[in-house]
Amino acid sequence: MKKNTFGEQSLKLHKKLKGKIEVVPKIKVKDKKDLSLAYTPGVAAVSKWVAGNKEAMWTHTIKANTVAVVTDGSAVLGLGNIGPEGGMPVMEGKALLFKELAGVDAFPICLATQDEEEIVRTVKNIAVGFGGINLEDICAPRCFVIEERLKKELDIPVFHDDQHGTAIVALTALINALKLAKKNIGQIKMVINGAGAAAMACANLFMRAGISGKNILMLDQTGIIFEGRKESMNEYKEKMAALTNPGKIKGGLSEALNGADVFVGVSAGNVLTGQMVEKMADKPIVFAMANPDPEISYEEAKKAKIFIFGTGRSDYPNQINNALAFPGIFRGALDARAKAITDEMKLSAAYAIAKLVPKMELKTDNIIPSALDKRVAKAVASAVKKASGKA
Amino acid sequence: MKKNTFGEQSLKLHKKLKGKIEVVPKIKVKDKKDLSLAYTPGVAAVSKWVAGNKEAMWTHTIKANTVAVVTDGSAVLGLGNIGPEGGMPVMEGKALLFKELAGVDAFPICLATQDEEEIVRTVKNIAVGFGGINLEDICAPRCFVIEERLKKELDIPVFHDDQHGTAIVALTALINALKLAKKNIGQIKMVINGAGAAAMACANLFMRAGISGKNILMLDQTGIIFEGRKESMNEYKEKMAALTNPGKIKGGLSEALNGADVFVGVSAGNVLTGQMVEKMADKPIVFAMANPDPEISYEEAKKAKIFIFGTGRSDYPNQINNALAFPGIFRGALDARAKAITDEMKLSAAYAIAKLVPKMELKTDNIIPSALDKRVAKAVASAVKKASGKA
Repeated sequence: MKKNTFGEQSLKLHKKLKGKIEVVPKIKVKDKKDLSLAYTPGVAAVSKWVAGNKEAMWTHTIKANTVAVVTDGSAVLGLGNIGPEGGMPVMEGKALLFKELAGVDAFPICLATQDEEEIVRTVKNIAVGFGGINLEDICAPRCFVIEERLKKELDIPVFHDDQHGTAIVALTALINALKLAKKNIGQIKMVINGAGAAAMACANLFMRAGISGKNILMLDQTGIIFEGRKESMNEYKEKMAALTNPGKIKGGLSEALNGADVFVGVSAGNVLTGQMVEKMADKPIVFAMANPDPEISYEEAKKAKIFIFGTGRSDYPNQINNALAFPGIFRGALDARAKAITDEMKLSAAYAIAKLVPKMELKTDNIIPSALDKRVAKAVASAVKKASGKA
Repeated sequence: MKKNTFGEQSLKLHKKLKGKIEVVPKIKVKDKKDLSLAYTPGVAAVSKWVAGNKEAMWTHTIKANTVAVVTDGSAVLGLGNIGPEGGMPVMEGKALLFKELAGVDAFPICLATQDEEEIVRTVKNIAVGFGGINLEDICAPRCFVIEERLKKELDIPVFHDDQHGTAIVALTALINALKLAKKNIGQIKMVINGAGAAAMACANLFMRAGISGKNILMLDQTGIIFEGRKESMNEYKEKMAALTNPGKIKGGLSEALNGADVFVGVSAGNVLTGQMVEKMADKPIVFAMANPDPEISYEEAKKAKIFIFGTGRSDYPNQINNALAFPGIFRGALDARAKAITDEMKLSAAYAIAKLVPKMELKTDNIIPSALDKRVAKAVASAVKKASGKA
C-alpha cells in the first residue's frame, strides 16, 4: 500500500514537473555586449583556443563538471528490460542527485539500441563534451563488456554504477557491520546470492578489501558456482569459479549458508528464509539488496534474529543506497581530472563513508549514513582525489 | 581591435565560468520522502508507466522541453573544420540562448566523428530523450544528407540551423527591405553568392516565399551555376542549376550582378566591391552575411550607396542573426509536439519576425528586431504553432 502511494505520488510529481531537471545559463545575456561575449563574435576566440589546445575543454567548457548518465534501458531498477524510455525517469533522478549531492552537472542519455558494439560507438562519439560517463541500468554480461571497452578506449572515467556504486556502499556496510560483530574481514565466510553486474563487482571489491576468495561462495539461479560447472556459465562466472569456492561445494542457497558470516543478496525478493538464516554463523550479517522487495522481508529478518540487516530501501534502517557513492565518486574524479575510477578510489570511498558513522553512534540499526547526509559526497570526493594522487 | 577585445574578454569569461550552462534540479530533495518520489522507490511507477506508454515521455520527462544541439565541428562559425572541441563553446552558447530567449532546455552534443553514416546512427541512438534535434556547424554537402536522413528516420523535428535559421532571418530582412524599396518579391532579381548550406536553404525558402527561380543566380567559387556546368558540381548544385538561371548565364559575381535587386552573401569576407554594386538595379539591397567579415565592409557599403545593408554582425545595423529564429522555432515545435519543421512554419516565422518592426519604425537601418528582443521568440513560436495546425 505504501509503495503504491509512493508510485502514485511520484507519477503526479513527474507530470506536474514535466521532468526533474533543466538546463540553465550560468550568466545573464542582457545586452549586445553580453551576447558578443557569450556567443558571436567573441566565442570564436574561445573556439579557436579550445580547438588548438584540447586541454582547454577542461577549463573553458562545461566538460570539467559534466557527466553523461547513459542507459540502454535493459535492466531498469528491478523492472528488467523495459527500454530506454522506461529508463529516462531514473536517469533524470540520478542527474538530479548528482547536482544536489555533489554539484556535478549530469545529463541523461537514453539509448535506442541494446547492441554492445553500437552502445560503445555511440558513447565514444558523444564523449567529447563530457568529463565522465556513468553507465546505468545496463544488464549483465553486456555491461561488463561495454564498461571494459569504454575504459580502454576513452580517456575519461567510465563507471557502471549498478556494479561499483553498489559494491562500494555494500563494502561500507560490511566494514561497519564487522566492527559491531567484532569479526575480522580476513576470516569471514561470505555468500553472495546473485551473479549479475552488482554481484560480480561486490565480489571483486570485497576481495580487494581483504576477504579471501576461498571464503566466498557465489550463487546464480542454478546454484553455487564452482569450477567445472557446465550449466549456464559465462566468462565472468568462470573467472569467479576460479577465484572462489576452492572446495567445489555444490548445492543451493541453504547448503551455501552453512556457517556463513555474511549474506550479500543482489538477486530477487524473498529467496532467503528464516530457516536458512539459522544455518549461518553467530551474529549473522544480511545485506538483502534486491529491489523493491529484499531477499528477506524486514519482519522475517527480525524473527530470524539477524544481527545486522541492511536493504536497498529507504523505509528500513541501514539503507545500502548507491546515492552514497556515485555523486562523490565523480566529484572527486572530475576535480582530480582522473582518467579512470580505480579500485583504490573505490576502496577509499567505502572507508570514507564508513568513517562518517562514529564509533559511539554505531549501532546494529545505524551502520551507514543517510543518502541525504551532505557530508558524504564531500568525504567520498576527497577520498577519491587522494587515491588518485592529486589531493 | 574591437574584435580582438571581444575575443580576449570572451576567453576570460569562459575560463571564469568553466562553461556557460549547468544542469539543475527542478525540485529540492530535502528528506527521505522527496527522495522516494524523485528517485526510488517511487520512480519505478513512472518508469513502468512511460515504458508502457511512450507518449508519456512528453508528459512525465524532460523530453517535452529538451533539444540536442549537435555538431561534428566541421564548419564552426567562419573557422572551418576545427573539430568537435572547437564547436563546444558555440554549442554551449546556443544552449544558453535557447533557454534565455525561449525557455527551451538545450544540451550540447559534440561528436567525435565526421562520418555521415556514423553521425546519423549516433543521433538516432540518443534521440529518445530529446524533443528535437538542432544540427549546427556541420559542413555542406554532408549537412544536407544528414538532415534529410534524420528527418526521415526520426519522429521529432530536426533542424539544421545554419541552413534554415539563416534562411528564415534573411527572408525576414528581405520582406522588410522590399517594403522600403517598394519592390515586389515576385519581380525582383537576386544573386546568391555561395552554394553551401545556408545558400541552398536561402534559395529554397526565398522561392517558397515567391521569388521566381528564373530571377535567381547562384554562385560558388567557380562562378555562376548553370545547367550543364561540369566543374565542381554536386547533387545540390545540380538541383539549383535546374531551378535557377534559365538563360544559362555564365561568369563571375560582376556579371551576375547586372541589374540585380538583391545580393545575398553567404560566402566569404570582402568579395563584393563598390564597382560591382554599381551594376545592381536601383535601390540595391545587400545582405552580406559572411562572418566575421562581411562580403563588403560597412564603410565600403556606405560609399557604394547601398540602399539597405544587412550583415551578421551585432556592431552594425540590420543584424541578420539566427538567434531571432531558432529559439522560437523549437519553442513552437515542442509546444505543438510537431514531428517536423515544415516550410510553412519557416515562412510564417519569417513574416512574424518582420511584423515586429511596425511600419512607422521601419527604416533602411532598422529592418529587423534585435536578437535580444523578448517578443521575437514568442511571435515565432506562435507562428510555428499556428502553421503546425495546433495553435
